[in-house]
Amino acid sequence: MRVGFIGLGHMGSGMAENLTAAGHEVTVYNRTPGKMQPLVERGARAAESIADACLGDAVITMLADDAAVERVSFGNGGIIESLGRGAIHISMSTISVDLSEKLTAAHANAGQRFVSAPVFGRPDAAAAAKLFIVAGGTLDDLAACEPLFEAMGQKTFRVSDRPPDANLIKLSGNFLIASVIESLGEAVALVGKAGIDKMKYLDLLTSTLFNAPVYKTYGGLIVDQKFDTGGFSAPLGLKDIRLALSAAEKLRVPMPLASLLRDRLITLIATGGEALDWTAIALLAAKDAGEVSR
Amino acid sequence: MRVGFIGLGHMGSGMAENLTAAGHEVTVYNRTPGKMQPLVERGARAAESIADACLGDAVITMLADDAAVERVSFGNGGIIESLGRGAIHISMSTISVDLSEKLTAAHANAGQRFVSAPVFGRPDAAAAAKLFIVAGGTLDDLAACEPLFEAMGQKTFRVSDRPPDANLIKLSGNFLIASVIESLGEAVALVGKAGIDKMKYLDLLTSTLFNAPVYKTYGGLIVDQKFDTGGFSAPLGLKDIRLALSAAEKLRVPMPLASLLRDRLITLIATGGEALDWTAIALLAAKDAGEVSR
Amino acid sequence: MRVGFIGLGHMGSGMAENLTAAGHEVTVYNRTPGKMQPLVERGARAAESIADACLGDAVITMLADDAAVERVSFGNGGIIESLGRGAIHISMSTISVDLSEKLTAAHANAGQRFVSAPVFGRPDAAAAAKLFIVAGGTLDDLAACEPLFEAMGQKTFRVSDRPPDANLIKLSGNFLIASVIESLGEAVALVGKAGIDKMKYLDLLTSTLFNAPVYKTYGGLIVDQKFDTGGFSAPLGLKDIRLALSAAEKLRVPMPLASLLRDRLITLIATGGEALDWTAIALLAAKDAGEVSR
Amino acid sequence: MRVGFIGLGHMGSGMAENLTAAGHEVTVYNRTPGKMQPLVERGARAAESIADACLGDAVITMLADDAAVERVSFGNGGIIESLGRGAIHISMSTISVDLSEKLTAAHANAGQRFVSAPVFGRPDAAAAAKLFIVAGGTLDDLAACEPLFEAMGQKTFRVSDRPPDANLIKLSGNFLIASVIESLGEAVALVGKAGIDKMKYLDLLTSTLFNAPVYKTYGGLIVDQKFDTGGFSAPLGLKDIRLALSAAEKLRVPMPLASLLRDRLITLIATGGEALDWTAIALLAAKDAGEVSR
Repeated sequence: MRVGFIGLGHMGSGMAENLTAAGHEVTVYNRTPGKMQPLVERGARAAESIADACLGDAVITMLADDAAVERVSFGNGGIIESLGRGAIHISMSTISVDLSEKLTAAHANAGQRFVSAPVFGRPDAAAAAKLFIVAGGTLDDLAACEPLFEAMGQKTFRVSDRPPDANLIKLSGNFLIASVIESLGEAVALVGKAGIDKMKYLDLLTSTLFNAPVYKTYGGLIVDQKFDTGGFSAPLGLKDIRLALSAAEKLRVPMPLASLLRDRLITLIATGGEALDWTAIALLAAKDAGEVSR
Repeated sequence: MRVGFIGLGHMGSGMAENLTAAGHEVTVYNRTPGKMQPLVERGARAAESIADACLGDAVITMLADDAAVERVSFGNGGIIESLGRGAIHISMSTISVDLSEKLTAAHANAGQRFVSAPVFGRPDAAAAAKLFIVAGGTLDDLAACEPLFEAMGQKTFRVSDRPPDANLIKLSGNFLIASVIESLGEAVALVGKAGIDKMKYLDLLTSTLFNAPVYKTYGGLIVDQKFDTGGFSAPLGLKDIRLALSAAEKLRVPMPLASLLRDRLITLIATGGEALDWTAIALLAAKDAGEVSR
Repeated sequence: MRVGFIGLGHMGSGMAENLTAAGHEVTVYNRTPGKMQPLVERGARAAESIADACLGDAVITMLADDAAVERVSFGNGGIIESLGRGAIHISMSTISVDLSEKLTAAHANAGQRFVSAPVFGRPDAAAAAKLFIVAGGTLDDLAACEPLFEAMGQKTFRVSDRPPDANLIKLSGNFLIASVIESLGEAVALVGKAGIDKMKYLDLLTSTLFNAPVYKTYGGLIVDQKFDTGGFSAPLGLKDIRLALSAAEKLRVPMPLASLLRDRLITLIATGGEALDWTAIALLAAKDAGEVSR
Repeated sequence: MRVGFIGLGHMGSGMAENLTAAGHEVTVYNRTPGKMQPLVERGARAAESIADACLGDAVITMLADDAAVERVSFGNGGIIESLGRGAIHISMSTISVDLSEKLTAAHANAGQRFVSAPVFGRPDAAAAAKLFIVAGGTLDDLAACEPLFEAMGQKTFRVSDRPPDANLIKLSGNFLIASVIESLGEAVALVGKAGIDKMKYLDLLTSTLFNAPVYKTYGGLIVDQKFDTGGFSAPLGLKDIRLALSAAEKLRVPMPLASLLRDRLITLIATGGEALDWTAIALLAAKDAGEVSR
């Protein structure tokens, strides 16, 4: 397929590379042009503008937040103005349910198609084409995107014919991950202060009821206190929990655990953790217990 | 081995049966004698008293709470008075760290051995000899118990030479399970109120990052709203979270998520859920969202 | 003074009437024109448009939320376009810190003056000219507004020369009020379920350490379960707590008690309390305790 | 009246002195005898034992916690063994509802009378005979104690004929005070980080809706960051919130705000605040906001 790819950050670079490697005709665009070069060396074409990335069958956006997606979508030279009739905008960023609704309506108005397809997986999974893709859109639109999804992920879940549902599921998933981090943080602070071997404790958990990638990945980061990995920063985590809470408020669903996570992330950022991986909230329980100095 | 088994509830019955089936010489005791009959039919001997169950190499207690374990352990005709020198008391109940410390000291005083070996697994796992056993005690004592553990569980974790550490780990594990239940409850309330198919949502979770028994078991109960299973009742859940919080307070470890879980369990019990499985706290978010009537 | 008054709701009607009674030349404006009639009968002039209310020395806005204040301030025929150079816009609504910053800048750009002066007090206090006015603005600007403040309030606090500070203080004050409501709700649920006389309990509190208007007013509403007073609705309360949390997040200040209040207000609204006074969150503890049916 | 007084700590010393000054025949007892001397110099008699303090019409206990009250009440030479038939034990300590029930029953069994009369007020109020006394007991028993209460307090509230109700009310009152501290802590952290003058802010609050002793006293301590006053230490505060939560759990009343306060107090104690006044929890929000270093 002929596809544009906008946003070559930690996640996007690997995804665009996998599309190129799978034989798709990829045109990449990034605000900081330097990031395009490695992709060009692997066969992609560098777009000169957002409009230039919108000439194919589809354009993918993989950007940091709502503001970035709005910037490239609306206004002069934006995606909605530039994309051909019947072409598809595939939004793979973790954006708000509200913006997803706005994009669904705007593309329909412009005679274009819109698919929301946020992903689960950290940068290493993006590079290895091992992402889980949560796709929302009409059956036809999702089918049309399948060759692209296959090149980037290990599995695609067609969750709903309404694109914003995929965003809500993605946000709820990040809430579940952060819940795991918080619960492990409290449990490790508890057994750690009792003098129990933390690594042995984690092994016990992950070889029994908690035998899942999420416990292994985050549990390992917590026990090793490896928080400067550049995987997923605290401000991005705060953004996602805020978006989940905001969608929940609109739906009138109170989520006290999500509220706790929001407070933890603000605390982390306010006390020197702005550049750390969001997993570092797991240390706050240990800090409040006087186990780890601030 | 010659072993006594005190406490034939949902969990204990299956465990005692597996010991018998494995060829151990088992003497069972239960306050309500009727529960001993099925075991006797399978080859166990019915004890006439607690003292009568303490004549072998070891005696196992599997009871509902601290009060029950204290009752059979201390005082006239209790385990400490009745057990032979060098024989082992294996406490497999989920009891407090405090009581475990008290038993460790009392048995040492009496020239007896004490092993703490609480388990992870619900009644079906107990019946199928698939329990995970968390064992605390000296290496020699744990080695002596191994034939019994093998008959009851799928794996034994030797976590510490201090028996109370095993209890703390067990309590922390139940805290982690309850955290999963709460997080799933909030997430399902959110996507459910948005009109997304809950079973499909759970499938997505458990086939990706949350591919662990704990998400499958509890997620299934939540989506099906099956809370009258008699697996693990709300008051028992409240007891365990209370014991975890109490141990944490003594160690000076604040656990805000555990506090939230405690409030949820009290709410569940206060609003008609006393007889339900503790998984029913997952419905409170949906009730607070007006999705499910109280 | 010649002053325009935009927004004749529960609060604004009384305030505008007091301005008129004090001898000021008042021009009132309301989206629903019927509400202007009683004021006209008392000597005010009915404006034909927002612009028409901006012809004097000052214009006061007293509206429900940010959206309403934005609507009358910006755009064609709005306050910024219509107000004379050197004239003052006095924003008395409880709006966000963000919007207050935006208005401060916009009025400065237009050569106008901006004062932020949100109030404490319910409709009866507004009618009785007993409001507490929290005023932010330059000393000169605040001095210019003083005759108006005197007509509407019992006391004016000049808190800062930056108008948005007054909004932050107002929001923090509403957070403190909601905290009182929540704490009383929990305490009354506790002593109530123990069978203690609630009114006697409240008398004890308010004649000792808690001898303050906020405990008397809200405590009375709680004990009498009078929640359909039309004083301050749950959605308005939720809005204010959300604005406080949002300002706090921007400043990187975690506020766990505010998070709890937000969850309570969402629960209240989701479970049938949308039309009730926000004090009704005090009943949620009793409901969760099974004391009051949902 | 002839009255014994057991417990001459921060509070008890002043109370016993006021009884003596009012003309009562006071026999004092304290575990550390040195504290009796100043009272003897003012006319009290020093008891040689607890039994020796139980020879009059009544004996008052004012001790730190349940354990201390149990120690002097039960067992050989304790109050129950020593007090005459028809004499009154007036328990003024902040003890658990459970212990109060136990004492009510034990004294009734022994043909003695029991009154529970915990107090509101800090040591300065105790010294100035300005305590608020919350009294539970039969009308006759309360009437008999009135001359003593008049010598120690500014007002007595007869709240119930069941002594434990007075303890529940006292615990709920301390919960309300701690709620004020937490809410002020969060609010002051918010406006403080925004650069607003904290003292001015507190003045605004306490001269409007929050015009109550509790806001003035605790607000002043918070703004001045005066936490080493020896008024009421963090561990005592934690004890009271724990007792409130424990009574609430028994009554099946979830109290999420009390849970938050418990976590705050544990955090304070775990991070170096064990010797501080419990008001120091107000600094935790500012610390989590990065405003105050840990």
